[in-house]
Amino acid sequence: MQNPTAPTDLDRRDPLASYRDRFIGAESPLVYFDGNSLGRPLRATGPRLAEFVEQEWGGRLIRGWDERWFLLPEVIGDDLGRVVLGAAPGQTVVGDSTTVLLYKAMRAAVAARPGRTEIVIDRDNFPTDRYVADGVARECGLTLRWIEVDTAAGVEADQLAAVVGPQTALVVLSHVAYRSAHLADMAGLTAIAHDAGALVLWDLSHSVGSVPLRLDECQADFAVGCTYKYLNGGPGAPAFVYVAARLLDEVSQPVQGWMGASDPFLMGPEYRPAPGIRRMLSGTPPVVGMLAMQDMLALIEEVGMDAVRAKSVALTEHAILLADERLPGVSVASPREADRRGGHVTLNHPAMRDVTAALWAEDVIPDYRDPHGLRLGLSPLSTSFAEVDAGLESVRRTLERLTA
Amino acid sequence: MQNPTAPTDLDRRDPLASYRDRFIGAESPLVYFDGNSLGRPLRATGPRLAEFVEQEWGGRLIRGWDERWFLLPEVIGDDLGRVVLGAAPGQTVVGDSTTVLLYKAMRAAVAARPGRTEIVIDRDNFPTDRYVADGVARECGLTLRWIEVDTAAGVEADQLAAVVGPQTALVVLSHVAYRSAHLADMAGLTAIAHDAGALVLWDLSHSVGSVPLRLDECQADFAVGCTYKYLNGGPGAPAFVYVAARLLDEVSQPVQGWMGASDPFLMGPEYRPAPGIRRMLSGTPPVVGMLAMQDMLALIEEVGMDAVRAKSVALTEHAILLADERLPGVSVASPREADRRGGHVTLNHPAMRDVTAALWAEDVIPDYRDPHGLRLGLSPLSTSFAEVDAGLESVRRTLERLTA
Repeated sequence: MQNPTAPTDLDRRDPLASYRDRFIGAESPLVYFDGNSLGRPLRATGPRLAEFVEQEWGGRLIRGWDERWFLLPEVIGDDLGRVVLGAAPGQTVVGDSTTVLLYKAMRAAVAARPGRTEIVIDRDNFPTDRYVADGVARECGLTLRWIEVDTAAGVEADQLAAVVGPQTALVVLSHVAYRSAHLADMAGLTAIAHDAGALVLWDLSHSVGSVPLRLDECQADFAVGCTYKYLNGGPGAPAFVYVAARLLDEVSQPVQGWMGASDPFLMGPEYRPAPGIRRMLSGTPPVVGMLAMQDMLALIEEVGMDAVRAKSVALTEHAILLADERLPGVSVASPREADRRGGHVTLNHPAMRDVTAALWAEDVIPDYRDPHGLRLGLSPLSTSFAEVDAGLESVRRTLERLTA
Repeated sequence: MQNPTAPTDLDRRDPLASYRDRFIGAESPLVYFDGNSLGRPLRATGPRLAEFVEQEWGGRLIRGWDERWFLLPEVIGDDLGRVVLGAAPGQTVVGDSTTVLLYKAMRAAVAARPGRTEIVIDRDNFPTDRYVADGVARECGLTLRWIEVDTAAGVEADQLAAVVGPQTALVVLSHVAYRSAHLADMAGLTAIAHDAGALVLWDLSHSVGSVPLRLDECQADFAVGCTYKYLNGGPGAPAFVYVAARLLDEVSQPVQGWMGASDPFLMGPEYRPAPGIRRMLSGTPPVVGMLAMQDMLALIEEVGMDAVRAKSVALTEHAILLADERLPGVSVASPREADRRGGHVTLNHPAMRDVTAALWAEDVIPDYRDPHGLRLGLSPLSTSFAEVDAGLESVRRTLERLTA
């Protein structure tokens, strides 16, 4: 394949090109198109973890809780709010997994809209969102109302308007669709749900860190997202949850743990939820797991989310251009308008399952999603244009070979 | 204070003395009596995490899931089963926090006993256990039935027998009481609950890694425990849950996530729980957070749980002896019979809150628990007898000074 480590003209003109060197593996010939499933580690991260073990855990021991760790879910939550979420402080905490936080947020939202009987979700939402919504609906005696969407698209305003009403407790939407990369209109869809008196839970897993977010400005109610994709937190890193300040006083979630209590170390007879966003916590914060994302947050803050997005758009534009020019029989399943598209590009072809397997064998690592999509996750700060060139050329040759 | 790093006769006769050197901080003059809140890191752990970031996360990237990480919750779960739980393979997984797993296990247990109306729990159980039970009872329309226990004791057979009956869905018990260190009779109490047709959930947080467990032999139904105390997994390390094989087919828990589904990557329309213990999972396994506990599990396996327990008993016996001999006005709140006592010792005195604060200021780190208990958590493999001598001498001098 072409050399993915030799800069192209586009790389030479890329003002963010040098940031790629901050990541482990930048020098390797591997082509990595799966940063939207698991981001590469920063070079700073290994030493950060080792230093944490030696100095902070090993040196401060239990005192670390008083000194720093107890507040870390809020501190990193506020960092997320400022750097990538467009959220004022006090509305975001880190903890649990995306799934557990989806559960807690859905239960909290449904409880905040008593008497309403439906949860609205689209048929192509990520599986864990659908599964959690299904479980919450069942146990709370609600009905799931499905929005049918084409797998190549996302939820549009008229589709949502057609199904929400006085019966709607909650609308669950993904900001960027995991298959197509369709970018939803957060402000517009939220307003439609609010007009019906419903709450909205946004899953930001496929957008946070690659698409600028304005949760406060969009009047989002709840949001949940994962940190191991574009936030490079490491495999299984803890998730985050955002609850709008205006809702915090009324919010209650069912996993009543000591770390979500108003005074955890009083260890009193009754659970009283903590004031503010801490009530979304349950167990002991996963400190070791939440360290790595701090490096990426610092980097994104240094670069700025708008510059990250500009690079992301340039990378996806370039991939689409190459697909159009060089991959006959392949269709672009992602929106062609940059402002409707997240940070990945999905290319459809009946042979893509086999293509993906063949590419992996030669160290070109895209993702595959049914029915026949090759998914190119182009992490803005760790992906070069040369990598896109080399990877798409491998796709071309492999397709040619497998369909000959 | 006395020199906690100079071995005493008891240290010289301790066959496990040398293991202390495997832990970070063994050479420091700090006296650490809080390993039952947060265990010291092993020296192997920092390099392990850094190597994981460089080689496995950075090198294998998304491929790591297929190659190793996907099964890690079960692999480490089975290691826990073999090394510390007395559980055959296929019944234990690692994930979430203790609180979230308590929630899932309680919901699963209650669902498996439909028509029964009560959850039994003791008034002195750990706060998060009580809070979760309270929340689960409320949302499932059940009543909490309290066992009143003295804070210096644990739940006895006659107390449990007096409250269980055909109305009891679930009994929630701690194996070692977090204040007194009272060690419950797991086999006996489980049998009493079973005779009433109820299920039992054991919280092992304060025993796992210091007291040998025989979950299978005791016919335990559910068990949950934390890994950052005697398993040295690091602050906020993921927890584990055990479900007896005989119950697994009927068990369902409410946080229906993709990683607990029968085929996560099929991403199908409906949630179907995975066969076996994986159905207790919900979100993406917290890989980075579960690495450190592996070092301690390997060490415990090398030493053997019975030898660990023998050292633990010797340490607590020694602490009680010193308290009796040298701490006038102090009462031992923990059971004096070794076979009724876990791995910590609680010493009561009205001044203990102030004593604890004063000790911390001179790098002697016990814990304090209301109403007036100084808690000495004596991690068997990282605590020396010299440390106990030095620490108790500091307690003596501090008490003398503060009560003069």
